[in-house]
Amino acid sequence: MHPFRSHTCAELTKSDVGETVRLSGWVHRIRDHGGVLFVDLRDHYGMTQVLCDPDSPVFAEVEKLRSEWCVRIDGTVKARDESLVNPKLPTGEIEVYIRDVEVLGAAKELPLIVFGDQEYPEETRLRYRYLDLRRDAMQANMALRSDVVRGLRQRMWDQGFREYQTPIITASSPEGARDFLVPSRLHPGKFYALPQAPQLFKQLIMVSGFDRYFQIAPCFRDEDPRADRSPTDFYQLDMEMSFVTQQDVFDTIQPVIQGVFEEFGGGRKVDAVWPQISFADAALWYGTDKPDLRNPIKMQDASRHFRGSGFAIFAKLLEQEGTEIRAIPAPGGGSRKFCDRMNAFAQKEGLPGMGYIFWRDQGEGMEAAGPLAKNIGPERTEAIRQQLGLGQGDAAFFLGGKPADFERVAGAARNEIGRELGLIDEDRFAFAWIVDFPMYEADDETGAIDFSHNPFSMPQGGIEALEGDPLDVRGYQYDLACNGYELVSGAIRNHKLDVMIKAFELAGYDEAEVRKRFGGLVNAFQYGAPPHGGCAAGIDRIVMLLADEANIREVIMFPMNQRAEDLMMDAPSAPTSDQLMELGLRVLPRED
Amino acid sequence: MHPFRSHTCAELTKSDVGETVRLSGWVHRIRDHGGVLFVDLRDHYGMTQVLCDPDSPVFAEVEKLRSEWCVRIDGTVKARDESLVNPKLPTGEIEVYIRDVEVLGAAKELPLIVFGDQEYPEETRLRYRYLDLRRDAMQANMALRSDVVRGLRQRMWDQGFREYQTPIITASSPEGARDFLVPSRLHPGKFYALPQAPQLFKQLIMVSGFDRYFQIAPCFRDEDPRADRSPTDFYQLDMEMSFVTQQDVFDTIQPVIQGVFEEFGGGRKVDAVWPQISFADAALWYGTDKPDLRNPIKMQDASRHFRGSGFAIFAKLLEQEGTEIRAIPAPGGGSRKFCDRMNAFAQKEGLPGMGYIFWRDQGEGMEAAGPLAKNIGPERTEAIRQQLGLGQGDAAFFLGGKPADFERVAGAARNEIGRELGLIDEDRFAFAWIVDFPMYEADDETGAIDFSHNPFSMPQGGIEALEGDPLDVRGYQYDLACNGYELVSGAIRNHKLDVMIKAFELAGYDEAEVRKRFGGLVNAFQYGAPPHGGCAAGIDRIVMLLADEANIREVIMFPMNQRAEDLMMDAPSAPTSDQLMELGLRVLPRED
Repeated sequence: MHPFRSHTCAELTKSDVGETVRLSGWVHRIRDHGGVLFVDLRDHYGMTQVLCDPDSPVFAEVEKLRSEWCVRIDGTVKARDESLVNPKLPTGEIEVYIRDVEVLGAAKELPLIVFGDQEYPEETRLRYRYLDLRRDAMQANMALRSDVVRGLRQRMWDQGFREYQTPIITASSPEGARDFLVPSRLHPGKFYALPQAPQLFKQLIMVSGFDRYFQIAPCFRDEDPRADRSPTDFYQLDMEMSFVTQQDVFDTIQPVIQGVFEEFGGGRKVDAVWPQISFADAALWYGTDKPDLRNPIKMQDASRHFRGSGFAIFAKLLEQEGTEIRAIPAPGGGSRKFCDRMNAFAQKEGLPGMGYIFWRDQGEGMEAAGPLAKNIGPERTEAIRQQLGLGQGDAAFFLGGKPADFERVAGAARNEIGRELGLIDEDRFAFAWIVDFPMYEADDETGAIDFSHNPFSMPQGGIEALEGDPLDVRGYQYDLACNGYELVSGAIRNHKLDVMIKAFELAGYDEAEVRKRFGGLVNAFQYGAPPHGGCAAGIDRIVMLLADEANIREVIMFPMNQRAEDLMMDAPSAPTSDQLMELGLRVLPRED
Repeated sequence: MHPFRSHTCAELTKSDVGETVRLSGWVHRIRDHGGVLFVDLRDHYGMTQVLCDPDSPVFAEVEKLRSEWCVRIDGTVKARDESLVNPKLPTGEIEVYIRDVEVLGAAKELPLIVFGDQEYPEETRLRYRYLDLRRDAMQANMALRSDVVRGLRQRMWDQGFREYQTPIITASSPEGARDFLVPSRLHPGKFYALPQAPQLFKQLIMVSGFDRYFQIAPCFRDEDPRADRSPTDFYQLDMEMSFVTQQDVFDTIQPVIQGVFEEFGGGRKVDAVWPQISFADAALWYGTDKPDLRNPIKMQDASRHFRGSGFAIFAKLLEQEGTEIRAIPAPGGGSRKFCDRMNAFAQKEGLPGMGYIFWRDQGEGMEAAGPLAKNIGPERTEAIRQQLGLGQGDAAFFLGGKPADFERVAGAARNEIGRELGLIDEDRFAFAWIVDFPMYEADDETGAIDFSHNPFSMPQGGIEALEGDPLDVRGYQYDLACNGYELVSGAIRNHKLDVMIKAFELAGYDEAEVRKRFGGLVNAFQYGAPPHGGCAAGIDRIVMLLADEANIREVIMFPMNQRAEDLMMDAPSAPTSDQLMELGLRVLPRED
């Protein structure tokens, strides 16, 4: 017989009754029922009930077992009494009478109980991650992550892509975040960088003629920690294609993402129609470029109803250039209590408040209530109701000013209203492509023009478009939003060197600077660069959505804590002086 | 029509004749046949012949095209004249008459010609890697690598493994090589390390109860460069299993490796029987723990024939303790010329030479020739011949001394003899497990005991075995040799804390030191550690063998050069002073 197991803890059924078997696993729980010891023996695959009575030659040894000891038992499979069959357990029809036991690995007193759902501080969970990971939910999350990555890979191959590995120890990449640096020993004083993304390399792969590339790629950014991102590294499904349009990229990646959500979404509805919404419309309708489309609320421009109206605050506001009044329709929100709560929400978010109108039953028909309605009068109020398609029992909220100043809060209010009114279908994944991103933005204070997103995207309209107002230039750049998160980001790249140099010039970088900073890519584009484009999808985010987890550390095997420390392995730590010497470095004394 | 292509350059056949098509790709070659321009248009998938005569409205533009320009052409598919059909090309039955052309990306004068097989210095190839990679052989190597990795993954899943990702920014791992360090910005003066291998993490995954783990894992070692290894990072198929014996690991990984060699070996024979050879036997028979078993030569101990013989050098040598005479049989090597050449080879390798005997036709039978035969006389010579199973036309070579001093040269001589005599079947992959590695070795000068390989391996015989002579202890540690290379390395791990502490004690590390250096693992082993083991297979090496390449840079998309520089991306490079400031580091002035 195998020294450790003849079966896993999920395998034995009635058909094995009478067999002598060997199992290995962890003591999940021990119960003493009138002198008979019942042990739930657990391994990765499942659980088997094993038991021992005082007549057993190893009773004394079984008595010593404690939770999470790793043990091997030999025993005889017996059918459970009908009344004791556990239909929830694949092995619920049988139990195993212990004849021999061997402790493979004992355990000290546990800092964290694996059995049950007790909550522990994150520091405890990360320090004893190997115990935390034994819990059901973590085993399931890690298996899900592994299966999702496999599902993504499989679907990329099905689409004719090959996976190519790009360098991890390389030069700084221009993604805009902070690089992790790696000092070189062979070239003291010089540093490598870990890639923020394989962006430049995947573009070089296209210039090298590979046509379709993908990679489940680790990406490294030295970022200040946040709950929903890792402070050091994350994984993305990175892909790039030659000779394609934006629509080709969409048509290629949609079946990959949609397929994975359908396979691993646990029955939640997965939208098959992915609307394309311009960046400008997304801002107007949803107040964000990552809208949650499960929420049916669409904001609208309501300026005309307030221009010259009796509501002086808005009327005056609209006299300033670049201002607007936006309406958030709230079907079913027609009560003063609800409207006041939402107004308070806006105040908490830093606005003076939201004006509102709500429509209530007034005995012989509908009445528009709220201070706004009174101020602008019945005609304008009715015109608003008709524009928004609202009726009795509904409400509308209004925000005014420069859109850039209130859009974030408007988006948050839309979410809050949708949530409060139960308009959001939680069991659904709703996707939308956000397109036509502006290439440039102006600094609020200085007015200086800089790239608003990826500087390597192709401007729509080519070099001619770069002759006009930079703020009017849109890029072939796109994001995929899902349930309020950005899941994918990508672009058709700018593969034309003259257009690229002009595009950088507008953002204040002269040609010499571009050649210096992106020399590798610039040089490559001089030797027959094909048109190309692609995107990258955040793996951690996809798994979080599928696992319905809000913290990225629930879907990573060994995450850092929020101070970017690994408490289990003790990283980062002080280097030895030999190491520093070899690297030609000195650590500066800290200014405390 | 799609703006870039209706077909790839590998798709058009006779059935498309008459169609108007659009192709994009690179100008591979242009030929001018009596005023008609023939362009071989190439993309990732293949090649199509397109042509243009002076009547074409775009003739002038086509005339301007040069090699490696990226272009889009529109044209009409025509059948080639029977006499011009190229059966080697999938598109060889047709050609496309150009009606329109668009230059998508022009190219400057080329530093490296893609067409043909011209050799270039490695520096040129790496600096213009995007051109180098367009060459047939590189396209094939990269596709092979991608397919091999996929094949390995697929087979691991088939064996019930899941892929889990382990941290890349982490703590120093104890693999014995030099770590790459990553300075921490949030904790100035402290450093992370890039993992030399996921060894500790995969063991922690086993302690976490995952049972079967694998990963195509990037590994980082700051090593001095060599032709057959990357100076920075490499990939391995890393795997680990719980509740297994050494044989279980072999039975699991053999179908994975063998399957991949069968699938991608291009018809070369792949051995299905993988012998298990002890480390000691491998040293005796082959002079190495990475034997090339395509070479049938097996060395033997021939000491007894020389003890007290008339060959004084060997006879005297054997009076010293620990010495031995080894024979290398050389079937078919029975000529003085060959023997002298091999003797010279040994001298070139730093030995005084190899004694030899060869057996030749002497008219009325066989005669043993060579100086050795004369000195030891016919009886001993004949006994040697019988032991080695040699006959007329064969030879035997002899090396003497302490095996450790001559084994390397003996192994090299065995290779040389096998090669010279044509005994090696080049079209074969021959595998062997090398097992029973010694746990410890003694330093030549100080006699100090240290681990000879992986300190985390389980010693055979457990804690009792550690009570005796450390040099007698064998580990459950194994390598897979293939055609003279180490392809896989692994071990059953030492999961018992008491055995581990004792094992380290023998190598001079006290318990406090072990707890300090390997705290993460030591702590984990206190909470119910399962028996476990696994191995890691070198991906780059596997692809090199399959691609029949001797230089690792032929199977890596963007490799460093041998000075660990990326010439294309300019890495490593000087950091900015802001970066150094944030990291709390100063670069020491160089002592030139």
